[in-house]
Amino acid sequence: MSKVAQQFLDIDPWQVVETGFHPDRHQVAESIFATGNEFMGVRAYFEEGYSGEHLLGSYFNGIYEYEDVQPKPWPKGPIHTTHYMVNGIDWLFTRIACGDEDLDLARVRFSGFRRSLDLREGVYRREFTWAVKGGAKIRMLFERFTSMADPHLAYQRLTATADRDTDLTVEMGLDLGEPGSRRFWTEVKAAHLPDGAAIQGRLPRSGQRALAAMRLSASTLLDCEEVRRECYVGQRFQLVLPKGVAVTVDRQVVCRTERDTAVKDAAVWKAAMTELKDRRVLSYAAALVPHVAYWTRTWKDLDVTIDGDPANQQGVRFCIFQLHQTYHGVDPSLNVAAKGLTGQAYGGHTWWDTETYCLPFYLFNNPQAARNLLGYRYRTLANAIRRSASDDAVGARYPMSSIDGYEACGWWAHGDLEIHVSVAVAYGIWHYVHVTGERQYLVDEGLEMLLQISRFYASRGGWGQRTGEFGLYGVMGPDEFHMMVDNNCYTNVMVKKAFGWTLDAMKDVKRLDAKRYAAILKRVGLKPSEPKEWARMAAKMRVPQDRTSGVFEQHDGYFNYPHTDCAKIPPTEFPLYKYWSYFRIFRTDMIKQPDVLLLHFFFGGEYSLANKKANYDFYEPRCSHESSLSPGVHSILAAELGYHSKAFAYWGHAARLDLDDWNRNSNEGLHTTSMAAAWLNVVYGFGGMRSDGDRLSFAPSVPKAWKSFSFRVTYRGSVLQVAVGRKDATFTVVSGASVPITAFGKAVTATAAGVSVALPKGRVG
Amino acid sequence: MSKVAQQFLDIDPWQVVETGFHPDRHQVAESIFATGNEFMGVRAYFEEGYSGEHLLGSYFNGIYEYEDVQPKPWPKGPIHTTHYMVNGIDWLFTRIACGDEDLDLARVRFSGFRRSLDLREGVYRREFTWAVKGGAKIRMLFERFTSMADPHLAYQRLTATADRDTDLTVEMGLDLGEPGSRRFWTEVKAAHLPDGAAIQGRLPRSGQRALAAMRLSASTLLDCEEVRRECYVGQRFQLVLPKGVAVTVDRQVVCRTERDTAVKDAAVWKAAMTELKDRRVLSYAAALVPHVAYWTRTWKDLDVTIDGDPANQQGVRFCIFQLHQTYHGVDPSLNVAAKGLTGQAYGGHTWWDTETYCLPFYLFNNPQAARNLLGYRYRTLANAIRRSASDDAVGARYPMSSIDGYEACGWWAHGDLEIHVSVAVAYGIWHYVHVTGERQYLVDEGLEMLLQISRFYASRGGWGQRTGEFGLYGVMGPDEFHMMVDNNCYTNVMVKKAFGWTLDAMKDVKRLDAKRYAAILKRVGLKPSEPKEWARMAAKMRVPQDRTSGVFEQHDGYFNYPHTDCAKIPPTEFPLYKYWSYFRIFRTDMIKQPDVLLLHFFFGGEYSLANKKANYDFYEPRCSHESSLSPGVHSILAAELGYHSKAFAYWGHAARLDLDDWNRNSNEGLHTTSMAAAWLNVVYGFGGMRSDGDRLSFAPSVPKAWKSFSFRVTYRGSVLQVAVGRKDATFTVVSGASVPITAFGKAVTATAAGVSVALPKGRVG
Repeated sequence: MSKVAQQFLDIDPWQVVETGFHPDRHQVAESIFATGNEFMGVRAYFEEGYSGEHLLGSYFNGIYEYEDVQPKPWPKGPIHTTHYMVNGIDWLFTRIACGDEDLDLARVRFSGFRRSLDLREGVYRREFTWAVKGGAKIRMLFERFTSMADPHLAYQRLTATADRDTDLTVEMGLDLGEPGSRRFWTEVKAAHLPDGAAIQGRLPRSGQRALAAMRLSASTLLDCEEVRRECYVGQRFQLVLPKGVAVTVDRQVVCRTERDTAVKDAAVWKAAMTELKDRRVLSYAAALVPHVAYWTRTWKDLDVTIDGDPANQQGVRFCIFQLHQTYHGVDPSLNVAAKGLTGQAYGGHTWWDTETYCLPFYLFNNPQAARNLLGYRYRTLANAIRRSASDDAVGARYPMSSIDGYEACGWWAHGDLEIHVSVAVAYGIWHYVHVTGERQYLVDEGLEMLLQISRFYASRGGWGQRTGEFGLYGVMGPDEFHMMVDNNCYTNVMVKKAFGWTLDAMKDVKRLDAKRYAAILKRVGLKPSEPKEWARMAAKMRVPQDRTSGVFEQHDGYFNYPHTDCAKIPPTEFPLYKYWSYFRIFRTDMIKQPDVLLLHFFFGGEYSLANKKANYDFYEPRCSHESSLSPGVHSILAAELGYHSKAFAYWGHAARLDLDDWNRNSNEGLHTTSMAAAWLNVVYGFGGMRSDGDRLSFAPSVPKAWKSFSFRVTYRGSVLQVAVGRKDATFTVVSGASVPITAFGKAVTATAAGVSVALPKGRVG
Repeated sequence: MSKVAQQFLDIDPWQVVETGFHPDRHQVAESIFATGNEFMGVRAYFEEGYSGEHLLGSYFNGIYEYEDVQPKPWPKGPIHTTHYMVNGIDWLFTRIACGDEDLDLARVRFSGFRRSLDLREGVYRREFTWAVKGGAKIRMLFERFTSMADPHLAYQRLTATADRDTDLTVEMGLDLGEPGSRRFWTEVKAAHLPDGAAIQGRLPRSGQRALAAMRLSASTLLDCEEVRRECYVGQRFQLVLPKGVAVTVDRQVVCRTERDTAVKDAAVWKAAMTELKDRRVLSYAAALVPHVAYWTRTWKDLDVTIDGDPANQQGVRFCIFQLHQTYHGVDPSLNVAAKGLTGQAYGGHTWWDTETYCLPFYLFNNPQAARNLLGYRYRTLANAIRRSASDDAVGARYPMSSIDGYEACGWWAHGDLEIHVSVAVAYGIWHYVHVTGERQYLVDEGLEMLLQISRFYASRGGWGQRTGEFGLYGVMGPDEFHMMVDNNCYTNVMVKKAFGWTLDAMKDVKRLDAKRYAAILKRVGLKPSEPKEWARMAAKMRVPQDRTSGVFEQHDGYFNYPHTDCAKIPPTEFPLYKYWSYFRIFRTDMIKQPDVLLLHFFFGGEYSLANKKANYDFYEPRCSHESSLSPGVHSILAAELGYHSKAFAYWGHAARLDLDDWNRNSNEGLHTTSMAAAWLNVVYGFGGMRSDGDRLSFAPSVPKAWKSFSFRVTYRGSVLQVAVGRKDATFTVVSGASVPITAFGKAVTATAAGVSVALPKGRVG
């Protein structure tokens, strides 16, 4: 692994801080300092305008537009129309001038630049001293937050303090047009309000609407002039700055979206006006109180503490913060986008990352959010069935990437060949029920999905003529560096399991609710032959493996590929897709991310330590970690195998992936879903937790740099605190009933009083 | 094989005839009745306009336009810009009205429709009786030819005979706009000439120009009115038809193209005017004489006669005619397009078909054309080297499809993965030198290409870590139903051979011309280690094979694919790419076209009959023949194996592929390059000729329906006639020196007197 970190931010336990402006890293910073609240998100762009390189991004979750893709004629299978999250309304639009000098940090003289994101409070601040040409020095402070307590609400505060009497010309507006270089929106309506303005847009093809309304207030009198142009409405005013007096201007914003095309434009407008009216008296300070209270409450059970590793302490808190603000299960129709709400790369789409990486995070601190994530798959089941028809298959083929549940991945090698998403959904269902014990979920939603998923793989697979085994041919596995392969080991094993989970779920549901069981089978149109076939396919599933070494072969023929020495790739050649020919990537044994190794992570209880070691030793040096999903899983397995220095190195990569721009593309947005891996890395890695057995098990280890670390998991109504020091690990139930667990292979019961277990030898390193 | 013929044309030994109009087959007929002369080609569209389904196509060989393709951002490797042959000038543009009734065969009443293409003379005729609403019946005859004797020259003749005194309003023009639905051309200049008109267009991105000038003459006085609009110039006149008098209007057309962008527009115009002037006195009848004489001369050595199989006699002559009129080696910068000049499908591109299918055809009747085809590859060597760089390789990677020599295949699965084109070029070089004995060609062009080709495969391939063998990973073989495979047997064997041919050619050239040898090595920058590596790679090349059965495995893992029973696919599901999901095609053992079997065809001398049989028996039932290149090769091998009925069935498919629209897509254009397979089918199939040994060998067989057949091959300056009856085969040298050959394994010498060899038992069936 030849990637390296590129640190430019200060280390602080509870803040992300940039001291001094780094224009060449500005787009990375725009991603990192982004704020959001599941409903909306906004990059840390300079709201006053900036002529340097930047990516102005302001997003509404679940708001997307359609676009036709692919040349015509185009074969059957790949999609013809995609959809993606579009830039929403720039509700922070601001312009500031002093005399004839416009404030533009690419052009003016300034000093004392500092920006910070307070992770404990969820507030973004930026300040600097502007040395105006005329001679005045003005300290400028911009603050903003998107309310977690009231998600339609956002605030901007501008504070200016001049060293002599000065005037600023300030304009604050709502812009449907500029966000991004392309205008997606058509204006439905815009109006000036007594102390603000509002604008409503519509996306022509999806018919979705968004609206932002703002109200301005200041510590001084504002005499506003109305500004209006197509797709824009704003207010312009003179801001008088008496020498030494801090003058503030606050902007309260209410945003609203409407995805239901049956709702009339006027109704959307009216509802937003009502929302605005309801919040009439809410000042910046007053609105901040419940927002900060939300975060205080949230951090209580969500925090991970690490004593002795400040950089990674900051890293893991940053990951938790970003993941939580992007998704915490308020709106059951939403999901987690690969870049969250921090960039439009990856189209705002949901991927298999949801079930494989994010679900465990929520499962152990926010089970309702976990259930909502599965519910999203249930709501989109019809689209998954329609998708499988496009491939001449039947059953549910969940899309590679999507917002509305139908395939949106226009890059057909991936969209059409990565058929492992359905099996990730099956894994999510199983994992949810297994951890929560809620078998009723199978009755409510789970079984129907499982039946359609098994049906899909049965129709998509085939019987090998030489081996007599069942398998999946012409697929791309999780490792996207091998495009079209046969019998991807991970996929085959997961499908084998999915068949088993489905057959088990049939028994469970039949037992729990025979009537609904019959109704589900009827709705699915299940033929009696199908479960029998699935059992036969599972029994005869091809699992490529070298019998001598125990190493699973990633897919048929993988072992014979020519070799690429990943360690010798110069760091300047990352990301590889920018510098290497697309096809060069596909023809050697270099892999992008763990594939076989995922099995050892998901189902650790099923593989011997020797087998884990053999596979890790084989695949780890072949991995380029070009997927952000990679380092965390490697760290987890390295920790289990006692490869302490590797575990720690990968951990640093996973925890600070975006903060230090390891993958050289954080400018496009954060790797939001892989942030879950940083949390998994502490809990499953150093915490050594496993959730595939009958009870939670733990086998912690402590990196030598650490004095101690702790985290909490919510499990069947109890909150369990795990505190690990160099000598022992203490398991304490901080709320709820006692929790029986396994610690280092030994059954113990965690109670409110706490139970300590000594660390075996070799656990610190 | 579940495909079926769809015959709608009359059987005739020297003509293609449609009796009665078949509107549902009209676009197929437009392709079949197309005329051309290598410089230009024109589909048999109704020049008077037709509101029914049609494809107006008039092409100039080698004239193309660029277009950007692919979504952005796009990885390195696949092309960003393609180019393709565009519709040229509709120099046949005609409009005819009688009173207020426009002649449009989709709307008017007519009878006695007949169209014919005279293969002996190269003239297309169409006639019918138009029952005008007013009561007149007018017999209309349209004739046209594109001169083989003078390729810039084309003629149209209209003959009208009315059963009562009638007037027609006729317009004849030159149209840069309408051909096809999209206007590619911008008008440079247009002008009316004393008895005609001229128009010149330019393609904006390629800068190429085309010009057509026309001159009208008639058997009656024409009083012309000039018609002009953007991209169009024409003449309109009244045509007086006295009762019972055949009135003719002739249009002489001179076309000219200019691909060199350095030549000024005015110079192109001037040159065309000179050409027109030079041909001032040439009437339709006078121009026809050298055109017909050309065909008479050509057919002498090119004809294939079959006694007892009129449908296929017609079929093979049609194939020879179409292939010859598309390409016969006049312009060394041109090549053979997949659809010739009969449709814009496949972009007017040249493919590997040239070296594998067309080259042998020319090699044995027009060696200069064969050499020109190789010369095209030499002229485009720099583009092939540039192409390989896009794949992070070095050396010459000839494009999947192209006109200008750089990759134009925008369908990247094919354009980037089918790396077997360079090896087809190497095969062409070897085959040419092997058959002609001209080793000097290696000095002139061949060695330089071979060195760059070997260099390409050496850099593109790799060493298998398990087998220790060299191979090509991540490729698509000739069988396009398996997209990305490792060690395609055909490709690997061909590359092994190419390494050998290169090393042999180095020795030959060093011996023939040491000075130029040194110069070539210097120009290529050959490192001394390279030939050594090639020798090692050739020696250790991976050739997948089942040792027990001797069946070669098409690629690693092919034998284990799930099975598709080709015989059970309903004929209504062809072409499969229209009805099947793209990816369903890739995941079973069904193949599109011969892959392994090509080796048994190209290098028959190297495989035992038992091995040929084992491979044929295995692969033939797995082949869907979705490539037009397929049936001919199957017929040839079936003939060799004594599978007489199969040989005859595939032969009928190959010989009448377009006439009977076997592949349901002849509407888009003829399968011009696969027409070579019909000729190969007679010569290599029933004639049993092989050209890979030290001398030509023959082992003829006679289908039971046939009384006899004959063909001629040109070999090292001699013309050898092969006449095969049910009892014996007679080999006669009709010009040149005696030719030593092998007949049924026995060395004999063909002389002017002829030598007869009795057919062994089992050769009729």
